[in-house]
Amino acid sequence: MSNSSPLTGPEVAAHSTRDSCWIIVHGNVYDVTDFLDEHPGGSKIILKYAGKDATEAYEPIHPPDAITTNLPVEKHLGPVDASTVVKVVKEVTEEEKRRQALMDARPPLDNVINLHDFEVVARTVLPEKAWAYYSSASDDEITLRENRMAYQRVWFRPRILRNVDQVDWSTSILGVKSSLPVYISATALGKLGHPDGEICLTRAAAKHGVIQMIATLASCSFDDIIDAAAPGQEFFLQLYVNRDREITRKYVQHAEQRGVKGLFITVDAPQLGRREKDMRMKFVGDDAGAEVQKGHEVKKDQGVARAISSFIDPTLSWKDIPWFRKITRMPIILKGIATAEDAILAYESGVQGIVLSNHGGRQLDTSRSGIEVLVEVVSALRLRGYFPSPNFEIYVDGGVRRASDVLKAIALGAKAVGVGRPFLYAFCAYGQDGVERAIQIFREEFEMNMRLLGARTLDELVPEMVDASALTSHFVSTPQDNLFNSTYQPLVTAKFRESKL
Amino acid sequence: MSNSSPLTGPEVAAHSTRDSCWIIVHGNVYDVTDFLDEHPGGSKIILKYAGKDATEAYEPIHPPDAITTNLPVEKHLGPVDASTVVKVVKEVTEEEKRRQALMDARPPLDNVINLHDFEVVARTVLPEKAWAYYSSASDDEITLRENRMAYQRVWFRPRILRNVDQVDWSTSILGVKSSLPVYISATALGKLGHPDGEICLTRAAAKHGVIQMIATLASCSFDDIIDAAAPGQEFFLQLYVNRDREITRKYVQHAEQRGVKGLFITVDAPQLGRREKDMRMKFVGDDAGAEVQKGHEVKKDQGVARAISSFIDPTLSWKDIPWFRKITRMPIILKGIATAEDAILAYESGVQGIVLSNHGGRQLDTSRSGIEVLVEVVSALRLRGYFPSPNFEIYVDGGVRRASDVLKAIALGAKAVGVGRPFLYAFCAYGQDGVERAIQIFREEFEMNMRLLGARTLDELVPEMVDASALTSHFVSTPQDNLFNSTYQPLVTAKFRESKL
Amino acid sequence: MSNSSPLTGPEVAAHSTRDSCWIIVHGNVYDVTDFLDEHPGGSKIILKYAGKDATEAYEPIHPPDAITTNLPVEKHLGPVDASTVVKVVKEVTEEEKRRQALMDARPPLDNVINLHDFEVVARTVLPEKAWAYYSSASDDEITLRENRMAYQRVWFRPRILRNVDQVDWSTSILGVKSSLPVYISATALGKLGHPDGEICLTRAAAKHGVIQMIATLASCSFDDIIDAAAPGQEFFLQLYVNRDREITRKYVQHAEQRGVKGLFITVDAPQLGRREKDMRMKFVGDDAGAEVQKGHEVKKDQGVARAISSFIDPTLSWKDIPWFRKITRMPIILKGIATAEDAILAYESGVQGIVLSNHGGRQLDTSRSGIEVLVEVVSALRLRGYFPSPNFEIYVDGGVRRASDVLKAIALGAKAVGVGRPFLYAFCAYGQDGVERAIQIFREEFEMNMRLLGARTLDELVPEMVDASALTSHFVSTPQDNLFNSTYQPLVTAKFRESKL
Amino acid sequence: MSNSSPLTGPEVAAHSTRDSCWIIVHGNVYDVTDFLDEHPGGSKIILKYAGKDATEAYEPIHPPDAITTNLPVEKHLGPVDASTVVKVVKEVTEEEKRRQALMDARPPLDNVINLHDFEVVARTVLPEKAWAYYSSASDDEITLRENRMAYQRVWFRPRILRNVDQVDWSTSILGVKSSLPVYISATALGKLGHPDGEICLTRAAAKHGVIQMIATLASCSFDDIIDAAAPGQEFFLQLYVNRDREITRKYVQHAEQRGVKGLFITVDAPQLGRREKDMRMKFVGDDAGAEVQKGHEVKKDQGVARAISSFIDPTLSWKDIPWFRKITRMPIILKGIATAEDAILAYESGVQGIVLSNHGGRQLDTSRSGIEVLVEVVSALRLRGYFPSPNFEIYVDGGVRRASDVLKAIALGAKAVGVGRPFLYAFCAYGQDGVERAIQIFREEFEMNMRLLGARTLDELVPEMVDASALTSHFVSTPQDNLFNSTYQPLVTAKFRESKL
Repeated sequence: MSNSSPLTGPEVAAHSTRDSCWIIVHGNVYDVTDFLDEHPGGSKIILKYAGKDATEAYEPIHPPDAITTNLPVEKHLGPVDASTVVKVVKEVTEEEKRRQALMDARPPLDNVINLHDFEVVARTVLPEKAWAYYSSASDDEITLRENRMAYQRVWFRPRILRNVDQVDWSTSILGVKSSLPVYISATALGKLGHPDGEICLTRAAAKHGVIQMIATLASCSFDDIIDAAAPGQEFFLQLYVNRDREITRKYVQHAEQRGVKGLFITVDAPQLGRREKDMRMKFVGDDAGAEVQKGHEVKKDQGVARAISSFIDPTLSWKDIPWFRKITRMPIILKGIATAEDAILAYESGVQGIVLSNHGGRQLDTSRSGIEVLVEVVSALRLRGYFPSPNFEIYVDGGVRRASDVLKAIALGAKAVGVGRPFLYAFCAYGQDGVERAIQIFREEFEMNMRLLGARTLDELVPEMVDASALTSHFVSTPQDNLFNSTYQPLVTAKFRESKL
Repeated sequence: MSNSSPLTGPEVAAHSTRDSCWIIVHGNVYDVTDFLDEHPGGSKIILKYAGKDATEAYEPIHPPDAITTNLPVEKHLGPVDASTVVKVVKEVTEEEKRRQALMDARPPLDNVINLHDFEVVARTVLPEKAWAYYSSASDDEITLRENRMAYQRVWFRPRILRNVDQVDWSTSILGVKSSLPVYISATALGKLGHPDGEICLTRAAAKHGVIQMIATLASCSFDDIIDAAAPGQEFFLQLYVNRDREITRKYVQHAEQRGVKGLFITVDAPQLGRREKDMRMKFVGDDAGAEVQKGHEVKKDQGVARAISSFIDPTLSWKDIPWFRKITRMPIILKGIATAEDAILAYESGVQGIVLSNHGGRQLDTSRSGIEVLVEVVSALRLRGYFPSPNFEIYVDGGVRRASDVLKAIALGAKAVGVGRPFLYAFCAYGQDGVERAIQIFREEFEMNMRLLGARTLDELVPEMVDASALTSHFVSTPQDNLFNSTYQPLVTAKFRESKL
Repeated sequence: MSNSSPLTGPEVAAHSTRDSCWIIVHGNVYDVTDFLDEHPGGSKIILKYAGKDATEAYEPIHPPDAITTNLPVEKHLGPVDASTVVKVVKEVTEEEKRRQALMDARPPLDNVINLHDFEVVARTVLPEKAWAYYSSASDDEITLRENRMAYQRVWFRPRILRNVDQVDWSTSILGVKSSLPVYISATALGKLGHPDGEICLTRAAAKHGVIQMIATLASCSFDDIIDAAAPGQEFFLQLYVNRDREITRKYVQHAEQRGVKGLFITVDAPQLGRREKDMRMKFVGDDAGAEVQKGHEVKKDQGVARAISSFIDPTLSWKDIPWFRKITRMPIILKGIATAEDAILAYESGVQGIVLSNHGGRQLDTSRSGIEVLVEVVSALRLRGYFPSPNFEIYVDGGVRRASDVLKAIALGAKAVGVGRPFLYAFCAYGQDGVERAIQIFREEFEMNMRLLGARTLDELVPEMVDASALTSHFVSTPQDNLFNSTYQPLVTAKFRESKL
Repeated sequence: MSNSSPLTGPEVAAHSTRDSCWIIVHGNVYDVTDFLDEHPGGSKIILKYAGKDATEAYEPIHPPDAITTNLPVEKHLGPVDASTVVKVVKEVTEEEKRRQALMDARPPLDNVINLHDFEVVARTVLPEKAWAYYSSASDDEITLRENRMAYQRVWFRPRILRNVDQVDWSTSILGVKSSLPVYISATALGKLGHPDGEICLTRAAAKHGVIQMIATLASCSFDDIIDAAAPGQEFFLQLYVNRDREITRKYVQHAEQRGVKGLFITVDAPQLGRREKDMRMKFVGDDAGAEVQKGHEVKKDQGVARAISSFIDPTLSWKDIPWFRKITRMPIILKGIATAEDAILAYESGVQGIVLSNHGGRQLDTSRSGIEVLVEVVSALRLRGYFPSPNFEIYVDGGVRRASDVLKAIALGAKAVGVGRPFLYAFCAYGQDGVERAIQIFREEFEMNMRLLGARTLDELVPEMVDASALTSHFVSTPQDNLFNSTYQPLVTAKFRESKL
């Protein structure tokens, strides 16, 4: 159909019902009638744009090629004559104006001095739904917070009087050089928060020698990201395994072909978690989106996370590992290990590494933090002679906000640490500049902390430099005696006299 | 007296004193003069309706047959001619109007996404006294809160890469099939919170294959509940043992006859607890109520809990167990076990199961949570070869708000978990629909959590899937240094500039 | 001088300077010129009344006989002709009016349902300085609060299915019958809070069979208290040992003569603590007071506690015990033991008992709670075969607010428990009626808790009924991550729609 | 150039650019053109005063001789004729007026009854930047707060019935008599907070027999401080080692010559920490300052701490210790030991003592508190027979606010305790009088606490007098269940009726 003259707006507008539904995306017309019931985000959201230009709603939550990939070629109806399409006059909402004013009032980037600052800015300037999707975690978000607090249970035992003029925190991850013992972990749907999406990460990573892990659910397509790479820039790929293994095979082999250096298979998400902040947004019901890969219908009101993830295969099991081994020569890493038992199985299955992770607190709530699991895993592997090993690396992610957190993980046996949300918030708040600033903050903190620890290289970060004895302690303070507390009158300090002011 | 023509309103009104006191209930006249001093809720509340129609006050806190059962037949004076009774124009109070407006403003039921939501709605729309009665617990309510917090001290150790396409959380309890490893535990006085009372539970339970435990102190009569059952629907019975064993015998045997499948004898309530929220309401003093079964006078100002429970027998002891064995062939379960010692005695006494419970925090304050006792009990029984056993099941209740809590209990050895208040609040807030929604939420959470845990059936929930090492820790943080805290200035994040908005 | 005609107001008024200072107390004139520098509360406060009637200021903080006891008889100038004394028109301050209005608005006594309620009422209606004196504790008041919180670290292990129809919580203390396992511990300066002072305790104690410990620093004189006793009412005596042992000898022997049944020697107060709330009140500077027994000058601005206690002997040591044994046949109890080491010494010194106490948190801050020390002490004594013993009783005090606290102490080995402030606040708020109500609350709580514990007598309260494993844990939660906490957005429950109200 | 007639204002004003930059300090003209890029605080701040009188900005953050020492003599252009210099009319800002009013409204000094009070006053009256510099600590200020909280984890085990009439808390530190087991630890830049700077400490120390440790970064010059000493007054010196060892050698030998009794080499600061409060002040950007000793350029926006410390040598190592031994006969103490391993190395290196310190929480965050490290260090040294030793003393600092804290440290093996900020805040708030009051408060608390502990001398403070078992516990309470907490309704106490007031 693509050899005919362009379609016109009115022609498209004639197909605006469930029985015949055409939409325009990026100047091309698609017949999505048969796809309506297959759309992971539900048919309702598509029907809202039936007969119209859907590009703007499509953009932030689909990779550009999602529609061409998922729709049979005969449904690609060809280009539309833009001049004949009624422009949807997009009204600027009050909410949008408020956000724009807040964007203008952001703190100057050099006032941002720690990673928390990015989150504060992002929380303020992001559309409410984007914030809900990014920040949400499962159930009571206990694990989300535990991820942070666990690092507070590890204390330093710094050494003194070592010549620390030169300190070096560079490392290699799966053989790839990295200027930091940190990689950019996969986070999804970057365009919800910034029009350039994950490309912001790519550009900053290139400039500072940091490795980016590309997410299956990135808003930018895999190829767009790779195309934006600087010469020599290296990537990892995060993989959600599709129920249709053929799709997965193509995806993985394409990545390998384009030079990706490690395949991180997510193993903690046979189903995506119930994330209440996200659910309260009722994302799906109004304007949520679709997914690159073919999936299964999900119910409304389950939040964007559930909507975009129905294709993920819950049957994935240890039996599938050899198949992955067959289809790719990339190092394979299992992302989402949470026990020593599974770490051992992973080692014995011949993969090249594991990420001790609870998916940023977004999956099983009251699951333990990666840093806590690290101690258990290292101890169990060491016992069997599996650790240390040149062919098996251990990473952790979740809750990292300071270089000192990273150094604790490394002292306890991690090779590197994944950082997700902080980089995401950095680009939502300031684009590529934000990510660069985040890396710079890490660098400053690494320099200072390594000097203060008396460790000149990451190798000198030995377990004796931390006291992790409280790490496995999960205390919940006994309920308060409210009556006593409400009758007790706290001490106060000396009082000033009435001032003339 | 029932063969004469109906009595008239003025005739009844002539008996409005302590010396001769008639009241109308459900269109019948009763001479309660001699009963005044026996009324568990005190005589004052009855005298308020002397010579009048008491139905509206009677209804929510008595089963329909309470008055006919408790009053000798010669005091049943027969029907009254309704047309001759002066209608009590019930004024709609401001409070009542406010509640009605709040009922109208309730969140739509599909916005309710966790069990806490029901409590929030119930708390807002319930009459103050009903909320006080339902929510109250004993003394400082430490145990009430500990029940919840204890679950936070158990952490998951989830397994990965298992085919979790199909997960099944159905089970059987005392041989009765249940679609959830959860039963509806007994709670009292349901009509205080909803006009249909416990029948809301019955109907929802029928629809979803869940077992309801009928409370001795239910507002709906036992037979009303059984009559409302769907074909094949099964029940358990919660029993407060009466000082008059004959009453208890009849009650139990009637229940067995009507098909009840398990007898849960409450053993942690020789006397009902001092519940301060309830006491502060001075329930008894103004309009509180009576009890189905004959009891003993109690003092005023002790709250509704004490008023309705005076019949309970504090002499109940292990020696009574054989008697129960004799009067019924229903499985007998002891509800309210709190130590390994008593769990062993229970097993050796030949009962079919125990509920590790502290009565929802309503009895002995600073008693431990059921989930904590579970670990102690399972370990002690296992040591003696009593666990696992096909003839002895262990349940826990108290503090459950998430399917994940239930799964923790099952991993640690429980067969099923009792849930009381959440279902109660669900029907107070939304009637039968609320209970159905609650069950649906459980179902969604069970599916997700079992997948994320890597357990396809409840049998696969092994103890190694939880880390309960912190469960027995009862920490109370040392008192704060208030002077230090009030002088310390917390860090703040980067500041936005003044926005134009 | 007492045989002459009464002095006149003008005659007294002529002696209004430091060089010659007369004052009127209870209608008698005293020459206190030489006493000015000896007055424990400083000379300034006396000089304020030089030449005037000082009765009203004298009354609340001195026993009636303080002035006659401390002043040489030749300084007793005889009666004054009341008609000639210029009445000091006492202005009712705004503060006083406010307090009176609050007294009138007190909750009715039957609304007081726990011991905390008394404290709330007392805190509101007491003069600020009285509240400061009573409620204050040393330094950061850590120990004061720890006393309460320690009980929260002891959990119950209740037993079921015991016939608990009859429960009995009466006991005997040093052979004296007590209706409760609780005695009224000594607190000072009762008239600051109620015009009848400690007599309120005496009368309530008589009515309910409770033993009162009379304080050395009571506002009511020892004899006034004993004179107010009912027939057969028994007392203990709390003793601060005077630097002048002769004064102490007389005091003790007088007490024995009047039938006191136990001598509790305070051993944790060689110097009274720095109590900041009290100090901030600058009690001494304006209108603070004196002490029955001769003492030493103290500095200003140290609060009433320091002012009234300068006579206490810091040289008191183990070597003094035999002397006490010689001067009295009353059982001797050491009050203020805080370690196992000293408990052993006490036992071996032949005294009849010890009170494990930190003086209500008013002495050494960050000293441990009595209930914690109890476990250490019982274990150490048991090891040496000193416990249990018919000749040596152990008591604890501090932090008790519930009968359940008392039962925990008894289960752990205490014979009885001292309760101070709650009874003090009870009479400050409601006089004798308050104290009776407090005892009644205890009684109700004892009945309920013993039934729920399955203990019919105090002897059945065995150590296995409590889990005290957390008692010695002194945790201080690690400092909060304020940046994280301020960026984290807590979950919220379902929202109501805008209501029409 | 100093033999010519004085320069004039206009002549100086002609040199107001980066190409030729003269400034006036204390009436002398300096050519700082070549120094601009070397200035540790950056060139911008100097250029602000190019051609003008810079004295007022120079004063608070440089010792008087900083400029003459650092600038080659040929750049000393000689005196200026004051009458020809245009007076900079210093405008009194609103902020300054507000501060002055607050100074006038300070609590009277005798209302200051604990060390916290000084901090509250200082926080209120100090310029914002001074407060930020003094109060700030590194990263999340966890260690800053932990320093205080750690003392709360040590509990007393006081002994009774010892004759404590006479108690003596004097001691000697490195052989120097001290009236308290406390020395004044080094803090920097005192003139930011008080025009007299550290001299306030010197004068108060003289009067009360306390030893002052002089800071390398004091605002007052070393000689000014020594010159202000009373006859016989003794000092210690805190040393930041310069990259140019010659500067350090001269500095140390000069100190020894002037009678300093101990050299405390800071070993925990190869680089000064990132202190966010300080950084947020952007001190450097506008008016921050320089440093006595030659250093290296640092970046802007790093706060005053980084600006003034660039000269510190990060190559300092154990190999340098013999060199120090060679250049001085003062006892050498290593300040900033944080592990047993380094304590052992220190002992074996032949130094005379160590300070267990984390630099007031200003260096490595989540480093442990000195008091916690003390237990580890004493135990390790004791094991090797290194403790106790007459030639090796152990001190701790950080977090001390009460004499009781000091006594805990001494009981656990410390010889004395360093107190920094509290004395600093004392003089910022009240000058020399404040410091004297602080010492007096310590004295009162020492007397009371030693009596209450039953220790007559510091030697009697044995380890058994404290329970430090919780000291190594670093608990972080599990995240709150916010939904539960927000639905739970706390108990309330009895309510007052509406008062007429």
